[in-house]
Amino acid sequence: MSQSTLEYILANRIQGLDTSAIRKAFELASTLKNPINLSIGQPHFPCPSNIIDAGCRALKDGKTAYTLTGGIPELKSALAEKYKSGNGISYATPERILVTSGISSAFLLLFNALLNEGDECLVVTPHFLMYPAYIKIYGGKMYSIHESFEPEALKEFANRKLKIIIYSSPSNPTGKILSRKQLEALADLAEKTGAYLISDEIYELFDYDKKFISVGSFYDKAITLSGFSKTYSMTGLRLSSILAPEPITKVLTTLQQYTLVCAPSVTQWMGLEALKTDMSSYISDYKEKRDFVFESLRDRYEINKSEGAFYFFIKIKEKDDDFIVRAVKEKELILVPGYIFTESKNYIRISFASEWENLKRGISALAELA
Amino acid sequence: MSQSTLEYILANRIQGLDTSAIRKAFELASTLKNPINLSIGQPHFPCPSNIIDAGCRALKDGKTAYTLTGGIPELKSALAEKYKSGNGISYATPERILVTSGISSAFLLLFNALLNEGDECLVVTPHFLMYPAYIKIYGGKMYSIHESFEPEALKEFANRKLKIIIYSSPSNPTGKILSRKQLEALADLAEKTGAYLISDEIYELFDYDKKFISVGSFYDKAITLSGFSKTYSMTGLRLSSILAPEPITKVLTTLQQYTLVCAPSVTQWMGLEALKTDMSSYISDYKEKRDFVFESLRDRYEINKSEGAFYFFIKIKEKDDDFIVRAVKEKELILVPGYIFTESKNYIRISFASEWENLKRGISALAELA
Repeated sequence: MSQSTLEYILANRIQGLDTSAIRKAFELASTLKNPINLSIGQPHFPCPSNIIDAGCRALKDGKTAYTLTGGIPELKSALAEKYKSGNGISYATPERILVTSGISSAFLLLFNALLNEGDECLVVTPHFLMYPAYIKIYGGKMYSIHESFEPEALKEFANRKLKIIIYSSPSNPTGKILSRKQLEALADLAEKTGAYLISDEIYELFDYDKKFISVGSFYDKAITLSGFSKTYSMTGLRLSSILAPEPITKVLTTLQQYTLVCAPSVTQWMGLEALKTDMSSYISDYKEKRDFVFESLRDRYEINKSEGAFYFFIKIKEKDDDFIVRAVKEKELILVPGYIFTESKNYIRISFASEWENLKRGISALAELA
Repeated sequence: MSQSTLEYILANRIQGLDTSAIRKAFELASTLKNPINLSIGQPHFPCPSNIIDAGCRALKDGKTAYTLTGGIPELKSALAEKYKSGNGISYATPERILVTSGISSAFLLLFNALLNEGDECLVVTPHFLMYPAYIKIYGGKMYSIHESFEPEALKEFANRKLKIIIYSSPSNPTGKILSRKQLEALADLAEKTGAYLISDEIYELFDYDKKFISVGSFYDKAITLSGFSKTYSMTGLRLSSILAPEPITKVLTTLQQYTLVCAPSVTQWMGLEALKTDMSSYISDYKEKRDFVFESLRDRYEINKSEGAFYFFIKIKEKDDDFIVRAVKEKELILVPGYIFTESKNYIRISFASEWENLKRGISALAELA
């Protein structure tokens, strides 16, 4: 039978999912001899050796079987402590926690469990590119509000039947950390509309000016997402957690049993060790890099100082797609186009999760492209 | 704010997902002092040490970052070879292969990508409990046909608009291996109706009488699922692969980018080593256990000789729920009720993936319960 005569009929929900934007940049990049890469969305440092050792120990101890669906009890207890002492979430208990396979799996469970076709969602923008993808997959309707919003600006959504409100703080792609006033306004809106408030805190440790606040510290219906991938440089190991009201955690756990089964067993033991690891020297390094990028580019570009994560979202004068092609051709510089994070076509995202040499080359190339 | 006043409104698609059956057995079991467990759905032997060592090497080599969405090229190439030489699938190429996080993730991607609300599915029954769960989540309609079917029996489905045909062979829960004639009939039906034919071959190596055939060896539109969990005792490490027509593999890869991102990196390197591992002594051990169970129970129960996997599906005279409660109370014996795999309430599933001592105690207890 010839493949070419086959008609592949796919489900409607995934029509139009597209990864071409980032792929295009990577394909272009793969043709370069000596590229400067400022596009990478993960830490440049290796996973700390005590965490690696914990993984080997778990393997040698035979921790290769299914774990409990919701995660190993040791990790859930340690996470409850972390949410309490690290995030000020006094009500955190193991029963409220689900351990899952990375933040993207957390989205999968949450949107799958919570969103019906036609439900309305509010996204703080510029936003992580997966939020609209999930809203699309599950047939929701998306509204957005800019991350610089004043609390009063939320009034226009107060009479909507919102189902989900979601943001990342610190933000991918801007590095913005939402203020307490903004978070309070979002929690109020969630309370008024009955929406689920999902706080994606995967970059929580990358908080250069001690501005980060967990909304869960004052709003007990918050759904708080916490990751290991970025914090401990273990993106490929697939580990994150969800802290939610207990009935939600139960439902998500059931859904996990039918989808992901459990987070990878060995990774869970590594996560337990990770929570004991002091990452402050890594954070200091990134703070220095954040300052360097800001000082180097502030006179050349319209740019807000990143407060967290490891990104700058930079305004450019031409179309983002054209700019990234020009950056590759003229400077062998790899960037991410802004349109995957926002409706504007006049931004690019850079990452300063990089060795100094690559970063310095990249930033001076970028300065010259202005 | 009080939790108890909250109304949690969930998406319709997950209403009624339920794990209470298996949980009930486990809860009962947790009260026992010296239980005999024949309920376990995973191998009792440890993951072979060369595979463990490969995991440690990968960790120490810093393989903790995201991999390519579809899997590391080394593993995809090795899998293509495995599908060719192990399964007789001559057209297997890396481009047709997606590496994902366990078979359940493969189902997640496939049903998500292929099934629209109202689409019809045919399931060979008794069936793995996740098939109906996924059909339910995505709003499909399920038909079933008993695994003992004659090819002519499929005629009644020939004019249906089937979207998915799915089975596991060797079967969980019965150990049945579908014959070549049956597989040909299923492939014909798929061809006639335009359905996707999904062959779940996670137990392929547990083939005690050399009866196993991959439908993909003669049907090039087959979607073949292959796992590492059961074969190499690495259920907690989350690794499997999908071999599909290239356009389908592309779509599933895009969907993976938005959901699972990639299979765990370290596990992928372990998978590469696993494919070089000779498991024949483990399989011989299970064959001996299979024979022992059959000989011990054939005069007490109506029972078909399991041909593969590590299960027997045993007919009982009372209701399965009552029987498993009686087994726990009278014999401290843990079983799985059959109703989660079939419409009949007169079966139980036992697993012989067990040490001899536990197995012998369990089988003699079971014989006494007849």
